[in-house]
Amino acid sequence: MNFSSKLLEDAVAEFSKLPGVGQKTALRLVLHLLNQDVQDVDRFSKAISKLRNEIQFCQVCLNISDHPVCQICASPKRDHSLICVVEDTRDVMAIENTNQYNGVYHVLGGLISPMDGIGPSDLEVDSLVERLKTNEVQEVIFALSATMEGDTTLFYLHKRLKNYNITISTIARGIAFGGELEYVDEITLGRSIATRVPYINSLSK
Amino acid sequence: MNFSSKLLEDAVAEFSKLPGVGQKTALRLVLHLLNQDVQDVDRFSKAISKLRNEIQFCQVCLNISDHPVCQICASPKRDHSLICVVEDTRDVMAIENTNQYNGVYHVLGGLISPMDGIGPSDLEVDSLVERLKTNEVQEVIFALSATMEGDTTLFYLHKRLKNYNITISTIARGIAFGGELEYVDEITLGRSIATRVPYINSLSK
Repeated sequence: MNFSSKLLEDAVAEFSKLPGVGQKTALRLVLHLLNQDVQDVDRFSKAISKLRNEIQFCQVCLNISDHPVCQICASPKRDHSLICVVEDTRDVMAIENTNQYNGVYHVLGGLISPMDGIGPSDLEVDSLVERLKTNEVQEVIFALSATMEGDTTLFYLHKRLKNYNITISTIARGIAFGGELEYVDEITLGRSIATRVPYINSLSK
Repeated sequence: MNFSSKLLEDAVAEFSKLPGVGQKTALRLVLHLLNQDVQDVDRFSKAISKLRNEIQFCQVCLNISDHPVCQICASPKRDHSLICVVEDTRDVMAIENTNQYNGVYHVLGGLISPMDGIGPSDLEVDSLVERLKTNEVQEVIFALSATMEGDTTLFYLHKRLKNYNITISTIARGIAFGGELEYVDEITLGRSIATRVPYINSLSK
């Protein structure tokens, strides 16, 4: 592209580095910002810089937090005997949005992925093991993506944790609620038959 | 969404204001920035703030520029008797990328759009008329989008400019090069028959 301005070119180049943002989209976003008030753009720019410079991670669960210990870990209303292991903060938010979970979390910060050069030592595994050494924890639930990386991580973590006297579980896999059988992929459908569960009429409870 | 951090929430809120960026995309972009080095994020944030605070517009053609007069308007190699009128800087870049145009530009800064409350006084029309008062200009080419707003702007500008002793033209409309007839919309195809041109074999020239 022929930029008429170096400042414009620099801003577009920075936006283009974001995932899923090409040069045309970057230009559209930058021209949008140019049309905004100076104080609005300054607020945008400061929010990003402040986030990166001042962000903290909870000392217990390693989730993103404004305080040394996050709200969930600090709450006496949560069940601290139950730890849900997730990949990142997005998964914590997704589970919190269900309003179905009352335990605490442990954020690994990624999944084992040899292709991307991410091994167990890059994840927060030791800190998880440390948490299990207190007698408080009774169950660890793995809520990892049903991908190759998620399964590899699950396999590794199970090996690391199986000698501790705790229940280890994973979130259920199968066809999604509202899912029509004919559109479900073969692996999911095959596995959901193999791992069938006794019928419980939840409406009659 | 349940954010575990106010800083994170603020940054996501700022990103969500960008056109075409929803809350989920904003979160993905913000978490990407959180994983970058502090100096990379500072460069990102500064590029935006610097752009907005230091950007200039060419005094002649009103295109985005780092100098009081842009490179195109300052160039003695360009044909200053030919002005191409466009909506914004993206159109200048698109035309420059064709390498087919050697004249200069005039950036209107928008198109007349009563629905969005944009009238002729919001556009750089008077500055265009001023440029025509010098005897240098011989032709004005309108390169505006083939939309309702573009046509309205074209109609208005033609009325304003027709009493000056200059040629007024618009870029050609018709089926695109490489376009197959059966996929061309009816209006374009109908108009391209009505406005047919004498056949010139450009290969034999």
